[in-house]
Amino acid sequence: MLTLASDFGSPYPAAMKGVILRRIDARLVDIAHDLPRQDVRAAAFWCRETLPYFPPAVHLVVVDPGVGTDRDALVVRAGDHALVGPDNGVLLPPARRIAGGSGVELECFRYEYADPGSSTFHGRDVFAPAAAAVHEAGVDALGSLDATAPIESFAPGSPAETVVDCRFPEPEVSAESARGEVLVVDDFGNAITNVPGSFLDGREGETLSVDGTPAAVVAAFADVDVGERLVTVGSHGFVECDVNRGRGSDAFGLAPGDDVRLVAE
Amino acid sequence: MLTLASDFGSPYPAAMKGVILRRIDARLVDIAHDLPRQDVRAAAFWCRETLPYFPPAVHLVVVDPGVGTDRDALVVRAGDHALVGPDNGVLLPPARRIAGGSGVELECFRYEYADPGSSTFHGRDVFAPAAAAVHEAGVDALGSLDATAPIESFAPGSPAETVVDCRFPEPEVSAESARGEVLVVDDFGNAITNVPGSFLDGREGETLSVDGTPAAVVAAFADVDVGERLVTVGSHGFVECDVNRGRGSDAFGLAPGDDVRLVAE
Amino acid sequence: MLTLASDFGSPYPAAMKGVILRRIDARLVDIAHDLPRQDVRAAAFWCRETLPYFPPAVHLVVVDPGVGTDRDALVVRAGDHALVGPDNGVLLPPARRIAGGSGVELECFRYEYADPGSSTFHGRDVFAPAAAAVHEAGVDALGSLDATAPIESFAPGSPAETVVDCRFPEPEVSAESARGEVLVVDDFGNAITNVPGSFLDGREGETLSVDGTPAAVVAAFADVDVGERLVTVGSHGFVECDVNRGRGSDAFGLAPGDDVRLVAE
Repeated sequence: MLTLASDFGSPYPAAMKGVILRRIDARLVDIAHDLPRQDVRAAAFWCRETLPYFPPAVHLVVVDPGVGTDRDALVVRAGDHALVGPDNGVLLPPARRIAGGSGVELECFRYEYADPGSSTFHGRDVFAPAAAAVHEAGVDALGSLDATAPIESFAPGSPAETVVDCRFPEPEVSAESARGEVLVVDDFGNAITNVPGSFLDGREGETLSVDGTPAAVVAAFADVDVGERLVTVGSHGFVECDVNRGRGSDAFGLAPGDDVRLVAE
Repeated sequence: MLTLASDFGSPYPAAMKGVILRRIDARLVDIAHDLPRQDVRAAAFWCRETLPYFPPAVHLVVVDPGVGTDRDALVVRAGDHALVGPDNGVLLPPARRIAGGSGVELECFRYEYADPGSSTFHGRDVFAPAAAAVHEAGVDALGSLDATAPIESFAPGSPAETVVDCRFPEPEVSAESARGEVLVVDDFGNAITNVPGSFLDGREGETLSVDGTPAAVVAAFADVDVGERLVTVGSHGFVECDVNRGRGSDAFGLAPGDDVRLVAE
Repeated sequence: MLTLASDFGSPYPAAMKGVILRRIDARLVDIAHDLPRQDVRAAAFWCRETLPYFPPAVHLVVVDPGVGTDRDALVVRAGDHALVGPDNGVLLPPARRIAGGSGVELECFRYEYADPGSSTFHGRDVFAPAAAAVHEAGVDALGSLDATAPIESFAPGSPAETVVDCRFPEPEVSAESARGEVLVVDDFGNAITNVPGSFLDGREGETLSVDGTPAAVVAAFADVDVGERLVTVGSHGFVECDVNRGRGSDAFGLAPGDDVRLVAE
């Protein structure tokens, strides 16, 4: 199984699929191709929230603002999963989540690639064939993988410390308040913060101030009237600022990267 | 085969796919994940117009404004198809269409589910594993299905009468006029009404008034000039108010739920 | 393998997939369903840039402004690939590119179809079943294919000369300047011209005037600052007018079909 995630929109992902299917006969599953454009942190977030649900697979993740520069190409092994993409941090948060679930250590491999056909579409010319090669070899073989076109050399066991990482900001949480950040806004308009859901423990039915705007703490969207603001623990385990059948990001005036302060009332 | 329809946008459907593929090895086919948000009637319409074209399959349909409330979870059997989703009416119009084609009766089953991981994403935590369980058991086994995680209990043969239904409004049609409603506007901007296409029988080449705006009755878009309004029998069998290479909804000023009056001129 | 490309948006492609999967058990791969609406040239461009990456396959391409008129239905064979769609030019540029890569001649076949269920959705009622029939028969059998529902008659070897073609405009290129046209704007906002990338040979690091606006000639987006204009050879081999992490179409004021003049400074 091979999953694909990118910010490529349409129809570029189809070229990657063609490249892969010329090389291997694998089930392909799209994660998303409308990830926030060239936003490594958002891509890392969404891959962390989706890839761990999959059975063992090779995960191709290409959000790559440094395409065509000398940034490295990476394979990260997390147990019986492998993640393939640029060395810009996008692979590590999902890899850690996958590994955390199975108690394994990450292994990071860099590889050199032959001069690709383009300097603007390494998804097609570098990462897709590399993911196919990894899929064909099998995740277990990564430690002993020889160079296989388009992989010209493969450096097993590169220490994770030298790999570009992506860390999410840490919130400040006390008993009565929390200061965090909006990590992403999803397609429903839900403003998903980095404040852990546990901050809402025991507060259901209370009112919380979100940057001064009051909102009910509830378990389900339908616990408030249509169009009303709410605060809840979202499916990612974080505090979300939402609106029942509306867009929380608009109602609370929150965008990705915004600071947000939650205070018990 | 397992089809997926939702209003989840991206990338939430990927989490559902991961959950399913961890449990079963089935072909997955996306119906749509951009169904009009939390609009049960529109989702029922679009599923009715697409699911019956499929060979026997399990159809996962999650448009679920009541997520996290005590609305029931449902499996509807229609011959050798099964539809899985919330008990809010979204499953019945497509199930009736499938059953109507094969002359079978619908069977409705409720099930209780274990406390899910979230109260906001039952697509991932309740319905996807339930659909996988139904797929694994086989549609024929539904009548005798034992509880299988995440299905804690399964009530075979619940009478269809106690299930939440979704009915489309009935138009008033006479020889010379029809009063109906816009059911949906599709991605082309075609305003699809509930007036049966038979209302246009014998009127090709004539002009029809749509809420007072005249438009030609034609068989094909290209029968009028680019940018011109037209009325035709759409692929769903209903009267549509369209524009050749334009958006009928804009040109006629029609939105879903609007009343529309068609009068022969 | 059967690929699908259309301008149908969502969820109409699902109906095509159902129709196909009722007839054959083939791997389906979406190319795109948000091709520029009813724009045959843009669809031909994007299919030319994606289909040739695939292994042997049947490619269903439906961008069909003439749906319901008497335009013909076509199968084009290019080696071990076959393209199925309307006879409006959309199939020939990708077929030529596929054939060019393998040195084969194109063969074009027209077919008559039974009266379809609709005059507005031949993707579902004519082309999808035809593509399934071609897939089932096998590309090698095209020359001797008998009529198979929904194909009522099949005319092998229709000369390519009588088929509607789609040709892209030719640029005028000299040593110091080029006059071309914007073929498409992609989802990143890159304005892709018809000027061959070779025009930029040896100019890396120089400045080029794009309709009077200066821009650096670079190999990679990240070679200029975020938000800066650039000119590069895109992944299609053409000169593109782009912005690093921005939209070139906006920054240069370029839309599909616009003339563009590039002059060395």
